[in-house]
Order: sequence, then C-alpha cells, then structure tokens
Amino acid sequence: MGFSIALIPGDGIGPEIVAEARKVLDCVGSRYGHEFNYTEILMGGCSIDAYGVPLSDEALAVAKSSDSVLLGAVGGNVGNSRWYDVAPNLRPEAGLLKIRKELGLFANIRPAYLFNELKGACPLKEDIIGDGFDMVIMRELTGGLYFGERHTEEVDGVMTATDTLTYNEEEIRRIAVKAFDIAMKRNKKVISVDKANVLDSSRLWRKVVAEVAKDYPEVEVSNMLVDNCAMQLVMNPGQFDVILTENMFGDILSDEASMITGSIGMLSSASLGSSKLGLYEPSHGSAPDIAGKNIANPIATILSAAMMLRYSFDLDKEADAVEAAVKKVLKDGYRTIDIMDEGMTQVSTSQMGDLIADNI
Amino acid sequence: MGFSIALIPGDGIGPEIVAEARKVLDCVGSRYGHEFNYTEILMGGCSIDAYGVPLSDEALAVAKSSDSVLLGAVGGNVGNSRWYDVAPNLRPEAGLLKIRKELGLFANIRPAYLFNELKGACPLKEDIIGDGFDMVIMRELTGGLYFGERHTEEVDGVMTATDTLTYNEEEIRRIAVKAFDIAMKRNKKVISVDKANVLDSSRLWRKVVAEVAKDYPEVEVSNMLVDNCAMQLVMNPGQFDVILTENMFGDILSDEASMITGSIGMLSSASLGSSKLGLYEPSHGSAPDIAGKNIANPIATILSAAMMLRYSFDLDKEADAVEAAVKKVLKDGYRTIDIMDEGMTQVSTSQMGDLIADNI
Ligand SMILES: CC(C)[C@H](C(=O)O)[C@@H](O)C(=O)O
Ligand SMILES: CC(C)[C@H](C(=O)O)[C@@H](O)C(=O)O
Repeated sequence: MGFSIALIPGDGIGPEIVAEARKVLDCVGSRYGHEFNYTEILMGGCSIDAYGVPLSDEALAVAKSSDSVLLGAVGGNVGNSRWYDVAPNLRPEAGLLKIRKELGLFANIRPAYLFNELKGACPLKEDIIGDGFDMVIMRELTGGLYFGERHTEEVDGVMTATDTLTYNEEEIRRIAVKAFDIAMKRNKKVISVDKANVLDSSRLWRKVVAEVAKDYPEVEVSNMLVDNCAMQLVMNPGQFDVILTENMFGDILSDEASMITGSIGMLSSASLGSSKLGLYEPSHGSAPDIAGKNIANPIATILSAAMMLRYSFDLDKEADAVEAAVKKVLKDGYRTIDIMDEGMTQVSTSQMGDLIADNI
Repeated sequence: MGFSIALIPGDGIGPEIVAEARKVLDCVGSRYGHEFNYTEILMGGCSIDAYGVPLSDEALAVAKSSDSVLLGAVGGNVGNSRWYDVAPNLRPEAGLLKIRKELGLFANIRPAYLFNELKGACPLKEDIIGDGFDMVIMRELTGGLYFGERHTEEVDGVMTATDTLTYNEEEIRRIAVKAFDIAMKRNKKVISVDKANVLDSSRLWRKVVAEVAKDYPEVEVSNMLVDNCAMQLVMNPGQFDVILTENMFGDILSDEASMITGSIGMLSSASLGSSKLGLYEPSHGSAPDIAGKNIANPIATILSAAMMLRYSFDLDKEADAVEAAVKKVLKDGYRTIDIMDEGMTQVSTSQMGDLIADNI
C-alpha cells in the first residue's frame, strides 16, 4: 500500500534523527511491500529563517493533505528549557500549537516505561521501581489554558493578565473515549487526573469521565488530584496504566513521567484526532548543543514512526517489527552516547539507524 | 512576651500532632520566658459535624484576631487523595481556601530538604541525590485559578465549564519580593517557574520578577518552564534553592518536591501575608486511617511551630532550639513508625513530643 508522510525534520538534532526514522521506514516498506512517499516541510527556527514564520500556510496545507506527519524536534533550548519565548514569533502559538489545532489533534499519547535494558538510568531506587512500570499518558491537546481567550490589560492602572481554562462535555468525552479504548488494549485501568476540589472544569471533567466509564465496565477507573499524582509518580509509578488528563496537567505530568523512566531520549509520542491523520514525534527536544555531531539518539523518533505505522496506517505487524528491532539492538548491547553504559558498544546516530533497519 | 495562638487541631491525626506541637511550644515558653495563649477553633470535617460548615465566621474571627494560627490537618483522605469533593460543603472554598483569602496569606513557603538521618527513605538514587538538596518552594496562594471567576453553563446545548487564571503586577511583585528576601537568607538563588511560552499571566509574571530582581543584585535569578521543572526536580534536585511560582504550579511542584525528599511526614509549611499573622501547618494530610492510634509523626507540625516562632513572633533563637531538638532526637535514633528503620528505637506520637520537648 502507499502512504504519504509529511516529514518535519525541524531544528537542532531533528534532521539527523528523522533521517534514521526514514531509513527504518523504507526498510519496512521494502520488506512488507508498502510505499512511503515523503514530502519535507519546514517548521520552527528553520522556517523562521526561510519564511519569517515558524509554520507557513503552504507547509500546513501539505501536512493536512498527508496521511501522517513525522516530526523531529522544533525550537531551541535555552539553559534547561526546551522552548522559550525569546523571539516572539518563535512562540508555539504560531508553530506547534497551530499545527495541533489545525489538524484537530486533540489526543496526545505519551508512553512512559522502563526499558529493562536501561534500568540503570532510572533515577528511582530499586524498591520504588519494583516490577517496573509501563504507563501511557493520554493528554488532551487542543483545549484548556492553551487555547483559551487571553489578554493583558491595565485595570485601575495595574497591569493584569488573564488566561482562561475552558472545557466542554464533548471535548472531554472524545479524549476520555480514546483513553478507555487504549486501556482496553492494555491493563484496563484508567486514572483520571484533575483538580476537582478547586476547578469547575475539573468537576465537569470528572462527571463526563464517569459517564464514559459506564461504556467500559471492564475498565477499572478512578480519580486522582493532580498534586497527588505528581507525588504518586515518584512514590509508586507501578500503579499507573493509563493516565487521562487535561492539557496543562498533561504537559507537566507527562514530562515528569518520562523523566522517571530515565530514558526520555527513548520515548515516542503520538498526537491523534478523529481521522487517521496523526502527528508523531519524540518526547525529547531539539538539543541544539549536540546537533550535527551524529551522536543523538534516534530511537525515540524511530519508535514514533512505529506508532505512526500502528495508529495512522493500521500496520500493526510492521509496528511490532520496528519495536522488536529496537529491543534486539539494545539487547545486543548497542548504545548511543546518552544511554551508554559499561560493557556496551557505543554507536553513532546513523549506525544506530542502520542496526535497527538491519533487524527489521 | 505574650502571644496568642489560634489552634486548629482539625480532623484525623490533626488533634494528636497539634497536642505535641503545643507541648513543645509550652516548653519553649517556660524555658525562654514567653507566654503562649491558645484558643482552639474548629475547621474541616469536625466543624461540619458541629456547625454544618467547614469554617464558621466565629472561628474565622478568632483566627483573624490572633497573633498566629497553627493547623494540624483538615479533611479526609479517599484512596490516595488528601482532599476530596465528595461532600460539596467539604469543598476547600469554604475552609482552607477561605481562611487563606480572609487572612490575606498570599505567600506559601514549603521547604523540601533531605534529612541526613533519613536518606534511606528518599526515592531517588544516590547519584541523583549527590550532596543532598535543600530547597524552598515559594508558592503564590491567593491568586490564579484558585480564586478566579468560574462557572459552568450550557453553551449551544453543551455543558461548558470555565475557570479563569488572573494575576496582576502587584500580586506578582509582593510574592516575588518574599522569594528574593528568603533567597537572601539562603543561597541567593531564585528559579521562577512559569509557562511563559503559552500563558499571558506567565509572561507578566516573568516581566515583574525581572523587575523585582533588579533590587537584589546579589541574587542569581533564572526562569524555568513548569514542565521542565517537573523533570528537573527528579533529575537534579540539588540545583534548586528558592523556587518561585504561581498558585496551581506551586501546588503541583511543592507536592512533587516534598515527595522526592522521602520524608513528607517531616515537612513543615508557612502561609504568610503582609502582617506578622501567619498560618502554619504540616505538608502532609489528615491520614484518617491512622488517627487516634498515637502512632502519627508529629515532627512536621512541631517544625511548623518552629516556623511560627521565627516568622510570626521573631523568636529566631527559640526556633533554632526547636529545630536543634528535632535533629538531636533523630540523631539519638528515635523514630515514629513511618520513618522507622533498622537499629532505631520506635516511639509513639506522644513519646516523640516528649523527647523533643525534653531537648529544648
Ligand atoms: C512547546 C510547548 C508549547 C509544548 C506544550 O506545552 O505543549 C511542549 O512542552 C510539549 O509538551 O509538547
Ligand atoms: C486542599 C487543596 C485545595 C489544597 C490546595 O490545592 O491548595 C492542598 O492541596 C494544598 O496544597 O494545601
């Protein structure tokens, strides 16, 4: 079968890691008889350099008309921050948030699990890790504070800034359905996270989640307050299967969750809507400090491509093959520098891509 | 000197731990020649039982006219949650949030540090702990989403809920000043946490913090995005000295920070305003499951009382004495059950209070 993929290499290490994912996809294509057609588009700093905006209308149109979008990383890092507001036109409103909204990608899926081979990198002690953990954060991606009305104005001579957090039943229902659907394919456990002791939007969230839960009698569902969840992730990550939450809480908790795996350079993500079109990207940033050195870890992007095969193209067997190839290469002891450990073999970005492709 | 203290034993283990803090305060009084006068007031579940509301106007008036307020814990736990919205009148709006707002307690100070004697309880690995960590979260407490206008209404037949996040310059300035003041007494480092790449309120936050920073040339100041901060707390907690942030982010991050110490039962907190009147309480909850058993750990409450001596009564020497007594008792190997370890001597709630009082 033929599939069109919009490729967004982006900034920093983006181009290098996307090249490896493409290598692996091409291998899947020839092995399983599919044709992947790529169109490269610009987004982020490179698009500002070329066109003065982080995402041009032309680029957006290409993304919209593709079967799927694979993104490397956009934006730069300042200090420890993945994104910044130094240049006003670099603001995510005009790039990442725009593509999410325009493509209707309301469901952000970020798996966070402990790779057996990389347990040493986990910042948590053995007794906390227990039998390991394997969770998925289902984050609502096109509502809440991110897309609410906002303004800054003088009120009685005092500068005052306001952001609005709005959710309606339908927005909550559709993301809840996605979470329960995914739970059915996993351990059938959903923990919905909110701040229902304070927020109206969270109280509506809880109500709608409870309604949706009725359609999934097999799924164990419970509610957790967001402050408590931030603690539980550190104290007992093994209790989570699917975490369902709104946009801002999901932003914070998914980053915390991926960090406790110790392998954020290995974690993929998918942003989905109501059609098959999805946007796939690694959970990590553009790491400009190591860009162009052929040392970045391409695995998160390759695993994102696997998610693309699974969710956008319904190619489960092919997705399994990519995931198995990654496991095999890790088991064989190959590591990029970020996950390098004693007794292992250090390889470059492109060598890692080759190894995974060879194992398809 | 004489000081009036409103005591709020509250629910669950609250009365037991407050009794021990009072024991220690009385000891400080007779040792250093101060008189502490207590008035007990009801708040939380016990107040609902007695008066039908979580905080009566009479109780609030007593708190307002006191020199300071010492709180045990209010509310119940359901599952892992410290507070819940099961009974609508148990909602914090009518209790905890009300007392914070009415007393003008805009600055919540929550220290999070690793007790040397309790390193074993820290969920993080040795190499992450490094030389240990010792930070203070300065959380804005009377603004933002907690006190914004909110409503739930039908829009075109669809239930829609909205919360508003508002900050003005003055609210930001006064909390920033508190953070920089405290940094001057510590390691002179402030990390201000926001989501300035998305929120207008965060952009104003950043601007005002930068202005305030000019008055503290000795303090090193930087900005960090909230999602990144949630990661950095797990990855490198040693980098933090004072974290300055708004209400909701502070709620989430302070719980995460206290959990990574592994000793949340040991952590105190203070909520301050522009007068000397403050509210002091342990960072943990009311733990109804162990209430009445004389096994709860009173140390967080006793350390909260020490903060009261320091911040509300300007009794630094006396506060030092309480903190030193706690350290001594830990060093001598006494532990309540929650922090019990091999080779240590297990003691009850009241025994722990006695031991600390004896060491004043
Ligand atoms: C860049 C930023 C706007 C974005 C977000 O907050 O959604 C990022 O942190 C993410 O999680 O993808
Ligand atoms: C009970 C709840 C409203 C409160 C808050 O969110 O402020 C609590 O979590 C806290 O941190 O003191």
